[in-house]
Amino acid sequence: MKEVDISSINKDFESRVRLGIMSVLMVNEWVNFSDMKQMLELSDGNLASHAVALENRKYIEVRKAFVGRKPETSYRATPEGKIAFQKHIEALVALIGKG
Amino acid sequence: MKEVDISSINKDFESRVRLGIMSVLMVNEWVNFSDMKQMLELSDGNLASHAVALENRKYIEVRKAFVGRKPETSYRATPEGKIAFQKHIEALVALIGKG
Repeated sequence: MKEVDISSINKDFESRVRLGIMSVLMVNEWVNFSDMKQMLELSDGNLASHAVALENRKYIEVRKAFVGRKPETSYRATPEGKIAFQKHIEALVALIGKG
Repeated sequence: MKEVDISSINKDFESRVRLGIMSVLMVNEWVNFSDMKQMLELSDGNLASHAVALENRKYIEVRKAFVGRKPETSYRATPEGKIAFQKHIEALVALIGKG
């Protein structure tokens, strides 16, 4: 029987929302909340909750600033987050490669 | 800003357990419960619940048979399941390709 290994797949990146957030932050430096929300077609709550989870794992960092009088939240992937996501991608590719 | 599209990622395949089950069934015809469980290092309940979810979506089919006096459950991907999983993989590859 042909074997399949899922042990290297990172549960923190399982949901497509988190895959999306990390993918955006792999190719863009700081991305603000409204751009991220629009790009991934998410609700405020959905984006916020997944962003908090990724921040708690230190995969992304959060910056809060004022643009005029409006508060703006932006996200950036940490070096640790980029490495972890890269490993996750490699695990997916290894899995897919057997399909 | 570089765009990322997650709309083609299939929520039914998000979890690594389901990725694993489908990957196993893309490269093997009928796979029985204990082989699947062992290969993916899952508990009985974890495998059973994800298998039911995939069966409900008609992505896999289930066969129950007796091997001697022991009941044995086996799984096979449906043609519909194989196509859906292939599309999911293509969406992941498209996402990853931008990373």
